[in-house]
Amino acid sequence: MQTPTVEYQTDPSQYKHWSVRFDGEIATLQLNINEDGGIRPGYKLKHNSYDLGVDIELHDALQRIRFEHPEIKSVVVTSLRDRIFCSGANIFMLGLSTHAWKVNFCKFTNETRNGFEDSSRHDGLKFLAAVNGACAGGGYELALACDQILLVDDRSSAVSLPEVPLLGVLPGTGGLTRVTDKRHVRHDHADLFCTSVEGVRGQRAVDWRLVDAIAKPAQFAEQTQNRAQILAAQSKRPGLAGSGQGVKLNPLKKQISADGIAYEYVQVQIDRAKRTATLTVSAPKSDLPTTPEAMQAQGDAWYPLQMARELDDAILSLRTNELDIGTWLLRTTGEAALARQSDQLMVQHQSNWLVNETLGLLRRTLARFDVSSRSLFALIDEGSCFIGTLAELAFAADRAYMLDLPDTPERAPRIELTELNLGRFPMVNRQNRLQRRFYEETAPMAQVASAVGQSLDASKAMSLGLVTSTPDDIDWDDEIRLAIEERAAMSPDGLTGLEANLRFASQETMETRIFGRLSAWQNWIFNRPNAVGEKGALKVFGKGEKAAFDLNRA
Amino acid sequence: MQTPTVEYQTDPSQYKHWSVRFDGEIATLQLNINEDGGIRPGYKLKHNSYDLGVDIELHDALQRIRFEHPEIKSVVVTSLRDRIFCSGANIFMLGLSTHAWKVNFCKFTNETRNGFEDSSRHDGLKFLAAVNGACAGGGYELALACDQILLVDDRSSAVSLPEVPLLGVLPGTGGLTRVTDKRHVRHDHADLFCTSVEGVRGQRAVDWRLVDAIAKPAQFAEQTQNRAQILAAQSKRPGLAGSGQGVKLNPLKKQISADGIAYEYVQVQIDRAKRTATLTVSAPKSDLPTTPEAMQAQGDAWYPLQMARELDDAILSLRTNELDIGTWLLRTTGEAALARQSDQLMVQHQSNWLVNETLGLLRRTLARFDVSSRSLFALIDEGSCFIGTLAELAFAADRAYMLDLPDTPERAPRIELTELNLGRFPMVNRQNRLQRRFYEETAPMAQVASAVGQSLDASKAMSLGLVTSTPDDIDWDDEIRLAIEERAAMSPDGLTGLEANLRFASQETMETRIFGRLSAWQNWIFNRPNAVGEKGALKVFGKGEKAAFDLNRA
Repeated sequence: MQTPTVEYQTDPSQYKHWSVRFDGEIATLQLNINEDGGIRPGYKLKHNSYDLGVDIELHDALQRIRFEHPEIKSVVVTSLRDRIFCSGANIFMLGLSTHAWKVNFCKFTNETRNGFEDSSRHDGLKFLAAVNGACAGGGYELALACDQILLVDDRSSAVSLPEVPLLGVLPGTGGLTRVTDKRHVRHDHADLFCTSVEGVRGQRAVDWRLVDAIAKPAQFAEQTQNRAQILAAQSKRPGLAGSGQGVKLNPLKKQISADGIAYEYVQVQIDRAKRTATLTVSAPKSDLPTTPEAMQAQGDAWYPLQMARELDDAILSLRTNELDIGTWLLRTTGEAALARQSDQLMVQHQSNWLVNETLGLLRRTLARFDVSSRSLFALIDEGSCFIGTLAELAFAADRAYMLDLPDTPERAPRIELTELNLGRFPMVNRQNRLQRRFYEETAPMAQVASAVGQSLDASKAMSLGLVTSTPDDIDWDDEIRLAIEERAAMSPDGLTGLEANLRFASQETMETRIFGRLSAWQNWIFNRPNAVGEKGALKVFGKGEKAAFDLNRA
Repeated sequence: MQTPTVEYQTDPSQYKHWSVRFDGEIATLQLNINEDGGIRPGYKLKHNSYDLGVDIELHDALQRIRFEHPEIKSVVVTSLRDRIFCSGANIFMLGLSTHAWKVNFCKFTNETRNGFEDSSRHDGLKFLAAVNGACAGGGYELALACDQILLVDDRSSAVSLPEVPLLGVLPGTGGLTRVTDKRHVRHDHADLFCTSVEGVRGQRAVDWRLVDAIAKPAQFAEQTQNRAQILAAQSKRPGLAGSGQGVKLNPLKKQISADGIAYEYVQVQIDRAKRTATLTVSAPKSDLPTTPEAMQAQGDAWYPLQMARELDDAILSLRTNELDIGTWLLRTTGEAALARQSDQLMVQHQSNWLVNETLGLLRRTLARFDVSSRSLFALIDEGSCFIGTLAELAFAADRAYMLDLPDTPERAPRIELTELNLGRFPMVNRQNRLQRRFYEETAPMAQVASAVGQSLDASKAMSLGLVTSTPDDIDWDDEIRLAIEERAAMSPDGLTGLEANLRFASQETMETRIFGRLSAWQNWIFNRPNAVGEKGALKVFGKGEKAAFDLNRA
């Protein structure tokens, strides 16, 4: 792997920036950023400003609340600093970063923010931003990801998105999109707000819908508590009266080598000459627990949870640490019966909190594929196990190749749908991947629905429209080799743009608008001299110089 | 004005690249590009490839069919060249162009393509692409804008989008979006198609939904004719049996000076120091014809038509020729009664073809504001006339300032809604600008609906949420001056990204996905060394060199 690699695994004993307080059914995420604790050298994280390392902790903390603390129903996000909530992404870090680092950082941060809302919608973990001081840029974007925002009314603390006037870049971690789509701030108010360095405070912040409520400093703690309790009451999580203990998330066991990562259920093998990474995901290796109690007893070794955590870590690691590995080959392996059983048991017990949270983790992990700037080819050949949850890898892929062995059916690979494929893993545009595939058209959707549980060979999968190409064993090697070589010869940027457009067809949501419209414009700006040139706004920030702009509007 | 300026006004006597054949209720747009007729020097328009000049003719031809030829119900788009339909935007032109030129060119081309579909949807002009030969890149994107595509089946003619493999850029004039959103090509087929230089021909092009039908060369003309007739039968345009003669579009009378353009109803005044253009649109200057016959008798001097044509030309001219004039100040002037009357007469006679086409032109012209990369401030002060259609200028603006004169109500400016504001001018996201403003919420929508016909002063307009700020005459000058100065100090790119996000909230359509998701990614790529660097794919094309890529995926 390239050095220095970024490690996404952490745990509270290693946190430098966040602490978590547990109080009955309410958890409080407390931000207190160690300014010397940047994940990269060269900048100080002043004023509670963050970098990727801060967000890795936040992601970990959230994951642990979901799994280790089923008693928690609502989460308060606040700061331990006096008069400052969070001042957003660190500007000096952005100024020093490569384009790819900035893009990857924003993407992960977006996924974590979207994860707040995903949990609120699906699993019932509710979020309150208790904004106890100045809340700027990415700090306000963090607050926007919460269900509610309470702002201290101390005559000075404001919410603001000063990126455009101050830095010449966008509030690009969902800020512009959430202000409109989620909070329904009128577009002219949003224009005033997003072009103001000072931001908006007090009653105007409520009137313009930028926050839900304000509270005087003396009432702030009490109102935070009240609102957190009201939010907790809306949650369907187990709570204190619920099903007892959580599941401890132990460090993943992984072996990192020069060209790969080996987990128990996920193998990553990099071919640097071909610029491919093969991700092979295994089916369960033994019978699965059949009751929620037994699942819970297995803890983080329970197959779907462990596999999802490993896959999540593998995706994040490849995205950050292997920038020029442009094509991911998605493979599966293992026993069909066990993969089928795993899905069936999740369907059977989906009302159990642990199953529900695990389905959520799988949903969010699979959704990372859709926004990964890598070409995804699924390879369905002998010994593969594209069944149910594992078949989502094929449906997430830009192309799926399936080996056709009509003369030796006993060796022929099969794919198989389970109920989970029909709706439990929606993309961030709210379509599941079969709906995306068939544009929600009635006839093909009915056909695939009636194929659930059938073992489909290449010919059947092709006729159902589930795979792209079905070479036989004479053509297989050449066709795959050519496809990989051709892909490697194309412009990485062209492919990123292509995939970002083709993967999300027709239907857009707030999340896809963040990943598509907002991020695409931000990435454009991140390449423009007005932001990153020698006299660009991002470069001269804090140096006492004034940015010099090319004044042409494009 | 800057030189060389681009002139969007043309007429068939000046066409170099298109000819139009009229045959009963069917018009045929015939492409035969003069390779020496580029709008800029330095490249030859070989292989029926186009530049902005070609598209200006297409836009003009379309406009004339709409207004001058009410008998036309369907339009065949084809080529006069043997074995070549169109090879898309000229690559050498793109390679030579500035970023701003490329972006502006793509925007205008997109608007013209969207105009096909807008006409099909609203006015009943139907389009058939009769693809009589090779159809690549922007050529296929032109075909995609038609209601149907018929491809010649001659064993060689293919449709293709070779931009990614050949040039490292996207099929950025709607190609990627229409392949998915309009034609519902499965995403893996689209991936294969858009990464293939050769493209797809024959039956596979039908199977993959890339075209509607194929025809052998011997049957091609007949099938073209048949399909054009079937499409014509779906049209509600007057046709040969209809209301007679069209309206001749004469050259607009305009006086171009160093710092402005003066039309009859539209004045453009540029302040180069402040980097503003003031667009002032006048109400009608005399009583309006009250019957469709009388409107038609006025021809292109009929107020709504003339005003729309002037405004359209002004917008296009400013966008192309005044790149560093970053803020447009939108003003109106004239008699309230006449502006009101104009709208009322259009509502009364909206089923008349000329009224319907004029509303269409107004709709498309107003929609250009929404995608113009300029800050839009409406200034509603004494003598203004923001009524009905003219009030759309205020609703299109990023901000609307309205002068509050509570002590002298006789001098106070008023705004007034007409029925046209409630739905006749949807943006390309299908929301009208009041729905956009109020996120389609019931209460404010009901309030503005019941305010139709009321003369609203600043205080009432503010309480209805129709304007952004209402300074009195003591504050007016300073507030406007400050707003303009602050805007001029911000990064032009940051503002473009900001406005592109805030103007389109929540609801996306194919068109907004083209302008937002697709164009934003394309603009990103247009700034990347992999496309435009010395060894970028766009730069080395045709030179026999191989592009050299930074292999990092971002």
